[in-house]
Parts: sequence; C-alpha cells; structure tokens
Amino acid sequence: MKIGIVGGTGDIGEGMALRLSHLHEVILGSRDESKACTTSDHTIETLKGRGVQSSCRGVSNQEAVNAGDVIILALPFAHVDSTLAGLNGFENKIVISPVNPIARSGHFYYDPPEEGSAAIYIKKRLPESARLVVAFNNIAAHKWKDLDVILDYSVAVCSDDFEAKKVIMDLIWDLPDLSPLDAGPLAVSPIVESITPLLLNIAVFNKMRDVGVYFR
Amino acid sequence: MKIGIVGGTGDIGEGMALRLSHLHEVILGSRDESKACTTSDHTIETLKGRGVQSSCRGVSNQEAVNAGDVIILALPFAHVDSTLAGLNGFENKIVISPVNPIARSGHFYYDPPEEGSAAIYIKKRLPESARLVVAFNNIAAHKWKDLDVILDYSVAVCSDDFEAKKVIMDLIWDLPDLSPLDAGPLAVSPIVESITPLLLNIAVFNKMRDVGVYFR
Repeated sequence: MKIGIVGGTGDIGEGMALRLSHLHEVILGSRDESKACTTSDHTIETLKGRGVQSSCRGVSNQEAVNAGDVIILALPFAHVDSTLAGLNGFENKIVISPVNPIARSGHFYYDPPEEGSAAIYIKKRLPESARLVVAFNNIAAHKWKDLDVILDYSVAVCSDDFEAKKVIMDLIWDLPDLSPLDAGPLAVSPIVESITPLLLNIAVFNKMRDVGVYFR
Repeated sequence: MKIGIVGGTGDIGEGMALRLSHLHEVILGSRDESKACTTSDHTIETLKGRGVQSSCRGVSNQEAVNAGDVIILALPFAHVDSTLAGLNGFENKIVISPVNPIARSGHFYYDPPEEGSAAIYIKKRLPESARLVVAFNNIAAHKWKDLDVILDYSVAVCSDDFEAKKVIMDLIWDLPDLSPLDAGPLAVSPIVESITPLLLNIAVFNKMRDVGVYFR
C-alpha cells in the first residue's frame, strides 16, 4: 500500500513513517520538500541501523497526496485549514485524520470547531468522494518515534465509509501490537478526539508520561 | 466510612453495595424503602455465602443522604432532576456522580444537558457546600454486580474540590483492583462521561461485552 503523509516532518508524521515504512511504501510530504527528504533519509537510516529495510521518500505535501492510496493528515488542528486549502487530488482516496483540537488553560480541554470535531471539519474541506477515517488520535507523538517502545494500545477507528474503515483497521492489525477497534460512524469522532486531552490531564495530574488508552 | 447510595436498587447501586459493603457501612437508599431492604438483604446474604461479613441496610433515599458521609448518586440521568428535587441535606457531604447522559440512534452518543455534563448539571442542583466528585462513570453495571469478575479498570476521577477528590481516590485504592486516576477539575467531566457511549459503541461494533477502559 502507498501511504502519503501530509505533514510528515512533524513528530507524529515522522513517527508514523518509522513504524509504517517497513511494511508499506511511505511518501513523506512537507511544505518544505528538503525537510521531507531529510526526515525520509533519517527514517531509512534509523531502520537500516536496526537491520530493517524500508521504503520512504520525501516529497511536497501535494506529491504525497498524489502518490498515496491512503493519506494521513499528520497536522496540528491549527494548520489543517491552510494546508488543505493549498492541496487538491483527494478524490476517492482514503484520508486518515489523527487530528485533535486541544487547548489548555490550567488543564487541557477539548476545543472542537463548530462542526463538532476536527474530523467533521476536515470532511467538509475534502471532496465528496474522499473517504475519511478517524484513527491514531490517542497515541502520544513521542511514543510513535521511540522504536524501543511497544505500541500496544487500542486504536478507536470511526468512519461513515465502512469499506475504508475496514482497510485502515487491517492496516492497524498489520502493525505488531496495536489493536484497532471499530468505534462506529464519524459522528463518534468528538469522543475519540476528546480522549487525547483527557490523557494529557491524566499524565499531568498523576505525574505520568505519554499515557495511552486501552479498551477491553 | 458511611456510604449512602441514592438509587441503590438499580444495577449500579446494587453492584456498588456488593463491592463496598465489606469495607464500609453502606446505607442503601431507594424511593421504595421495602425494595431497598430487599436489595440490602440480598447483598448481605450474597456476601455471607462467600464468607464475607458486610454492613448494609435498606432505607429511603433521604435517609441514605442523611446517614452517609459520602453519597453516591446511582441514578440514570433522566431521573436525576426529579430525585434531587425531592431530597435535601447534601450540605458539606461528598457526592459522587457516576451519571452519564447517553442516547442512541443507531450508535450510542453523548447527550449532555446544556450545562455541559451530567456532573455540572448536578452541581447546580446541590447546595454550594456539597463536594461533588465524578467517578465510576465507565464501569458496566453488569460487571459491578458479578463478583466473579475482577474489576481492574482505570477510574478517571475529577472534581473542583481537591480534598474530596483525594478521599474518593483513596476509597477506590481500597478496592482490590481498581486504579483511580486524577483527571483534573470538574470541567473535564464531559470527556469522562462521554467515554461510556464510546465503550458501548465499541462493544456493539466489535461484538464484545462490557468493555472497560484503562489509562496507562
């Protein structure tokens, strides 16, 4: 599978490239193509150092969209609107949103746009035929990047496109330890996204680090 | 500690009596005092059958409030307003809300009142000096009642009253397997409550039963 990462030089994008590029062809995009190449080279070298062959190349965000079958929007919520406004070609592609709109005043809180969630906001900015799937929202960026950490979390996945949801759940099953769980339609996305500020609060108030979630 | 349960004959109230009454004095309230006595007798007998001595008595909801140091509102959200309107004496008491406002149309969704959460709604209906703590929201009623089930979930606890929160976290630590986690102030309650419809969706869409949550 060809996986295009928009925002691939951020912590989550880079971490996902490290975790996915030995199984899939990763096309790592950035506003700045030279940064994308640096991150891509780093990804390949890091995995090579662990004796793992990977496929990753650095490109522009637009080329990542063009080349991917699945596109991951590895963006902070504040950058979603301007980034999507500058891109096209999402028609018929599966698009993953791991985006969480979060704010902080003392504690962290969920700060969704008036659409109700980042995912619903993103859906309105994509062409009708784009197949949006919410996934990977509740995994700390830091843990994606540290390959010594076993990522054995539950991953709540929701979408109104049943087939696209199944493709992404299968993608998650292929990773060594993550467990995808069907959380239902896109309307459930506010709950999935809002778990992230809860995890951040739990980390802060209990002196923990990089708290994750398991549903069992 | 004296624990008064308002709505003690419902599934969660009964389950909590079964899990708490060997450690604490449980005063199990109901609109119908005779039902409270039946549930209370059943609790004592069930635990006796397991060789465990317990302290539980059935009373009216008002007597449960009067007698408890800590009051658990084991009520469906739809019954909260009418029940609280008929009770008094919450001044200076620690009040636990495990209440989740949930609705369903195909999938389950979080359906909070305009106040923002069941807990904030409850806070407005209690006297200023009542010390509200949100806890036990995400544990399936069925699992409370089945004493063969090990309840080893995480319990997110939030409150604006730091001391009351600590009392309830200590209460939870005293239970054999549950792990309390400080989730911050009462403003976090919408997230904690909304996890319950997510768990219900995950159960339905993945053919699981009584799904719980762990934060690690």
